[in-house]
Amino acid sequence: MPVEKITKRSENFSDWYNQVVIAAELADYAPVRGCMVVRPYGWSLWENIQAALDRRFKATGHVNAAFPLLIPMSFLEKEKEHVAGFSPELAIVTIGGGEELEEPLVVRPTSETIVGYMYAKWVKSYRDLPILINQWGNVVRWELRTKLFLRTLEFYWQEGHTAHATEAEAQEETRRMLDVYTDFALNEAAVPVVPGKKTPSERFMGAVDSYTIEAMMGDARALQAGTSHFLGQNFARAFDIQYLDAGNQLQYAWTTSWGLSTRFVGAIIMTHGDDQGLILPPRLAPYQMVIVPIYRNDAEKAMVRPVVERLKGELCEFRLTVDDREGLTPGFKFNDWELRGVPLRIEVGPKDVEKGTVALARRDLPGKVGKSAAPQVGIAQTVRDMLETIQESLFERALAFREANTHAPRDYREFAEVVKNGWALAWWCGDGACEAKIKEETKATARCIPFDQPGGEGRCIVCDRKAGTKVYFARAY
Amino acid sequence: MPVEKITKRSENFSDWYNQVVIAAELADYAPVRGCMVVRPYGWSLWENIQAALDRRFKATGHVNAAFPLLIPMSFLEKEKEHVAGFSPELAIVTIGGGEELEEPLVVRPTSETIVGYMYAKWVKSYRDLPILINQWGNVVRWELRTKLFLRTLEFYWQEGHTAHATEAEAQEETRRMLDVYTDFALNEAAVPVVPGKKTPSERFMGAVDSYTIEAMMGDARALQAGTSHFLGQNFARAFDIQYLDAGNQLQYAWTTSWGLSTRFVGAIIMTHGDDQGLILPPRLAPYQMVIVPIYRNDAEKAMVRPVVERLKGELCEFRLTVDDREGLTPGFKFNDWELRGVPLRIEVGPKDVEKGTVALARRDLPGKVGKSAAPQVGIAQTVRDMLETIQESLFERALAFREANTHAPRDYREFAEVVKNGWALAWWCGDGACEAKIKEETKATARCIPFDQPGGEGRCIVCDRKAGTKVYFARAY
Repeated sequence: MPVEKITKRSENFSDWYNQVVIAAELADYAPVRGCMVVRPYGWSLWENIQAALDRRFKATGHVNAAFPLLIPMSFLEKEKEHVAGFSPELAIVTIGGGEELEEPLVVRPTSETIVGYMYAKWVKSYRDLPILINQWGNVVRWELRTKLFLRTLEFYWQEGHTAHATEAEAQEETRRMLDVYTDFALNEAAVPVVPGKKTPSERFMGAVDSYTIEAMMGDARALQAGTSHFLGQNFARAFDIQYLDAGNQLQYAWTTSWGLSTRFVGAIIMTHGDDQGLILPPRLAPYQMVIVPIYRNDAEKAMVRPVVERLKGELCEFRLTVDDREGLTPGFKFNDWELRGVPLRIEVGPKDVEKGTVALARRDLPGKVGKSAAPQVGIAQTVRDMLETIQESLFERALAFREANTHAPRDYREFAEVVKNGWALAWWCGDGACEAKIKEETKATARCIPFDQPGGEGRCIVCDRKAGTKVYFARAY
Repeated sequence: MPVEKITKRSENFSDWYNQVVIAAELADYAPVRGCMVVRPYGWSLWENIQAALDRRFKATGHVNAAFPLLIPMSFLEKEKEHVAGFSPELAIVTIGGGEELEEPLVVRPTSETIVGYMYAKWVKSYRDLPILINQWGNVVRWELRTKLFLRTLEFYWQEGHTAHATEAEAQEETRRMLDVYTDFALNEAAVPVVPGKKTPSERFMGAVDSYTIEAMMGDARALQAGTSHFLGQNFARAFDIQYLDAGNQLQYAWTTSWGLSTRFVGAIIMTHGDDQGLILPPRLAPYQMVIVPIYRNDAEKAMVRPVVERLKGELCEFRLTVDDREGLTPGFKFNDWELRGVPLRIEVGPKDVEKGTVALARRDLPGKVGKSAAPQVGIAQTVRDMLETIQESLFERALAFREANTHAPRDYREFAEVVKNGWALAWWCGDGACEAKIKEETKATARCIPFDQPGGEGRCIVCDRKAGTKVYFARAY
């Protein structure tokens, strides 16, 4: 798809998003409604996300495992809130091996129930705790309104499931994993996120407390980018996860779960992208740089080629591609790699060869302002520094955008106005009725109660009663 | 489960296998019949298998992607042989989001059809070819007789799907990927495999030719450990994968597919294991070595600890664990890690500290014969060499076992006798009737027509007619 056909973000953000995902070949529509194919370029980005998270999970003592895709329907029914939340979204297998099944099987929408069943089998004594397991896999939720990466019938994610001897340990784990997500978002994806607690109405079905990281997209809407749940003893009681404590008393375990999905790919696209297409953060980009050799004839090609080969060797520590496609103009190639969001472009033409330089073009600063010449000598260090600069600048830009679009409305009328195109940080009395009124009248929802609170007291933005906490409200994906 | 309760291999190989898988915590039975949970120790082994294969796939130009789990029923029907082969094994989703679906969806048993549909969408010109995509994922086949890792309703695998402009290229790819599997099996898993072609009756449903690597298990039965299929234009015609060639003529593409699954974990267990439990090849073992500190009191513990810490640092290039569990005897720990198949055990006791040595115990040579003392100085090199030796010795032992249990029967009567407890390499006339007679009367099947042929001509082991090829026959998993 030619680059010029992409809608501008300011014209229609949603169209821009869909077109960029398709044109950059991140994903494609599958034949089943609401399902997607993640194409190699998109999957490579996801693999880099996986690696960055998996490293952090292992460093915090977790191990990976695999639980089954198919779950007996009766399992979901064991935790009342859980089944109420997920029932409308289930894909159900009723036929297996040519015969109607006695008990229908659910294609997992999430794995708390099957994991709970297995943990009950494995846990006997306090010595068996904690269990710190993560799973990388696919889940299915029968969503009605779908969008590539953001909300698809099948999606890919990791789901951590842990069981602990004490409430305090489980709560600590819940917060630790939210910290891991926050660290990943800030330092790998350059996505500034607000960590905080969900209000009761926005909790995961079956959880005692849910925590979230919330990110602001390029249209100022919010996106829940990762969640961590303290499940109390709800699933331990439903599935009988009991252990003998040091005093030989039978106790229920305390469990947590936490997940981050391919939705995060959508967060990266909508946080950093511009009218030319994707802009990928250097730490996660499938290609951190592209070398485009420039020549008009065989003589020039013969000049340029060996330099490109040498550069390729010197830059071998980076994820790099050389665009040596024949029959395409440099201009076409520039547009193509800009669309795909490659952070840095290195151009090598005959003049560069003569001068011992290369031309560098930063994706985050399109046009002349992001272009510079650099000596070929010491190119690895130059490029290393520049990638760092790009990573930081993407973060700073996104943070500035969020700050510019986050408001502190003085009254409900102002509140209703600002949440049309931004976030509101407002006092809330804690009453679900006020939250519901906001949702109904403004379409904004409580995104999170940020950990970072101003302290003191204010007046609820809806009812004017005393309020102890400030909450982020926004329209959300 | 205490080690002493494991059945001997010679008594009941199948019981031994099941008990080892459970006791070593590789996997567990899931609540749905025929499904398994791959536990962290088993998943870590699979992750090492994945890494070893993925490296090879990328080195041969392949990229990863993800295709959907759910496939319209009608897709399978587009390739006649394919649907005939898979229909009896399907898990079918008939309800989604609370409503009966207009068209039932199949939980993928394999992805040729959905991949074919997408390739038809992506391929326009010869410039779009070849497409070299691999997918890591889960599939479901409604098997009746199941066994952990070897045959489960849901299993994990990789499936490569490639499309090419010419028949020759596709055939070359098919063979290349079988070579990749062979190389992986020999050099990473220390599993000697016989590469060859399947007979027509053993082909993948929808393929023109199927290739396989066949391994001999510890009970002398065969196990198909990986397959690569030349699909001709069958799927290209069924899904309309057409491209404009350089002369602007519309042509059908040529496709291949190839897969290796968690079944290979079963192959490793049954190739190398002994009556004490697993023996894992050093290149794939989750832990390549375990350090067991030995002490009887706090004074000894204080002597041993710092040495263990230092060794841990010096051996940081290896996948290593230290068993510092309190309240367990060294003997218990030795048995435990033997059961789990850790290739090398390093013991450090007070005497070792005094002498500046450690005690090494090779898992592949239980008892005194595999024990030696080594100086702590230069331990990394000692251990590196020893792991190499273990890797080679596992391979040599398995190869010798296969050779000792592979026979060249002179007549059909002898044939029927040897395939009870071994493989037969015998002349075959190529007639499916002879193959069918063998299967019916001896339960042995044609495992493969090995590439390595003696040349010349012989007489068919069944009908005594002229025969041009020798074939491996065996009872198989």
